[in-house]
Amino acid sequence: MPAAALSDTAKLCVHTITTKPLPLEQALELYPRYGVHGITVWRQALEGRDVKTAGRQIREAGLEIVSLCRGGFFPAREAAKRQAAIDENRQVVDEAAKLGAPLVVLVCGAVPGQPLTESRKQIRDGIAAVADHARASGVKLAVEPLHPMYADDRSAINTLRQANDLCEELNHPAVGVAADVYHLWWDPELEAQIARCGKLGRLWAYHLCDWKTPTTDLLNDRGLMGEGCIDLRGIRGWVEAAGFRGFNEVEVFSTRRWGMDQRAYLDEIKRAYLEHA
Amino acid sequence: MPAAALSDTAKLCVHTITTKPLPLEQALELYPRYGVHGITVWRQALEGRDVKTAGRQIREAGLEIVSLCRGGFFPAREAAKRQAAIDENRQVVDEAAKLGAPLVVLVCGAVPGQPLTESRKQIRDGIAAVADHARASGVKLAVEPLHPMYADDRSAINTLRQANDLCEELNHPAVGVAADVYHLWWDPELEAQIARCGKLGRLWAYHLCDWKTPTTDLLNDRGLMGEGCIDLRGIRGWVEAAGFRGFNEVEVFSTRRWGMDQRAYLDEIKRAYLEHA
Repeated sequence: MPAAALSDTAKLCVHTITTKPLPLEQALELYPRYGVHGITVWRQALEGRDVKTAGRQIREAGLEIVSLCRGGFFPAREAAKRQAAIDENRQVVDEAAKLGAPLVVLVCGAVPGQPLTESRKQIRDGIAAVADHARASGVKLAVEPLHPMYADDRSAINTLRQANDLCEELNHPAVGVAADVYHLWWDPELEAQIARCGKLGRLWAYHLCDWKTPTTDLLNDRGLMGEGCIDLRGIRGWVEAAGFRGFNEVEVFSTRRWGMDQRAYLDEIKRAYLEHA
Repeated sequence: MPAAALSDTAKLCVHTITTKPLPLEQALELYPRYGVHGITVWRQALEGRDVKTAGRQIREAGLEIVSLCRGGFFPAREAAKRQAAIDENRQVVDEAAKLGAPLVVLVCGAVPGQPLTESRKQIRDGIAAVADHARASGVKLAVEPLHPMYADDRSAINTLRQANDLCEELNHPAVGVAADVYHLWWDPELEAQIARCGKLGRLWAYHLCDWKTPTTDLLNDRGLMGEGCIDLRGIRGWVEAAGFRGFNEVEVFSTRRWGMDQRAYLDEIKRAYLEHA
């Protein structure tokens, strides 16, 4: 059953990348004015800042930290590079712990030309090598399956089925899933795999935006909710039926939106969220 | 097991769209000089020509007609438009029969914002409404699953599993599958679904090109074999293990390649085919 319209913004989270031109301090000042209650912090937004202090400032602004974006990128042809990726991911976990973020989102990685089966094994092994440290740090890891158009160099995990399979195989309390409508909306198995993810107790994050027709850029032409063809109410209905009660995270990469006044944009986000999410 | 390198171009087919700037007559003159033995004709290449005559000219040039591209685009919100699509597809079948093409490739269609489940039903019903006419005309229909990035407005059939399911459901002797590496290479189920398609006796066409990193345009930035990350020998190995003995069809949409000298391009196609296909 499709979800009911949202009557308030209590569960509205915005990713800092969505309003990329805003320095973190300005985001903290503006987000609450536009009804935003949760924030997912991209690591770039922390550059040159003390992470603990940033975490305190975020909480003082009245925002809940939903997750830290992003870890991952485990596959590499050389063992030394794979080890470097594991070390880097442990640092990301430490950063999340300092920030006070309960979750790290993983864009798992891929190497152009390396067999996908090999990249998938390296992803499994990389996550396995970080998971205990994450658990000990009180941080969870969310595998985000990425759209198949990113299978060349961003992620060899391209469907929710694969992410669920990976969670089952690793069977680790710190490893779950982030479901993003942009990556998953086309999948004929989506409803079934969302339900399965819920049964596994692994549905830990829900990201939204929209798919525009035409889409003019593979990376930075995402639409705001309502601008595209994704059945947002339908998918949120499945997500909620699977037991998810977390934030609805607005994650939009858009060259056009990054070029506009970010206050006007935040106002647009709030309206699009209430009308279409 | 990966396929062995191709030792000759006996199975090399080129889609007329690949060399879009060439009028059909020029393609017929040039293709054989560059080792091309098969041709898949896009309908645009027939515009303003008598179809029967064109078919005869193609055969006289020594080329085998592999298929006619393309039918499909069945879904629409209004019943009248869906009926118009069915009528149009019957005409495409007639055109294929006149041309002497044994196969029509179907890009099944999608309507932005219409539920994919609904579009998928309309596709099934549309193909069912054309299949008997195709059979009576001696023409087969090949469902081509399209990459998920085209699920908004080009095809709601996005995996080989879906195409196989559709063939099983329709269970019609005139309905099979065209497998294109560009659309399918990322799929973790690809090997299994190619094998299944073979067992169903439905694997009727094999299209190739490559996936470039980065890909700068969703439509017209395909790579020539060897320029990208697709495991072409691996996939051809699966296709041949599934019993496929047809042509290897080079189908490349590339704004850059369309802008170059088409003789030099055909030479490049031949070399890329022998080195990488």
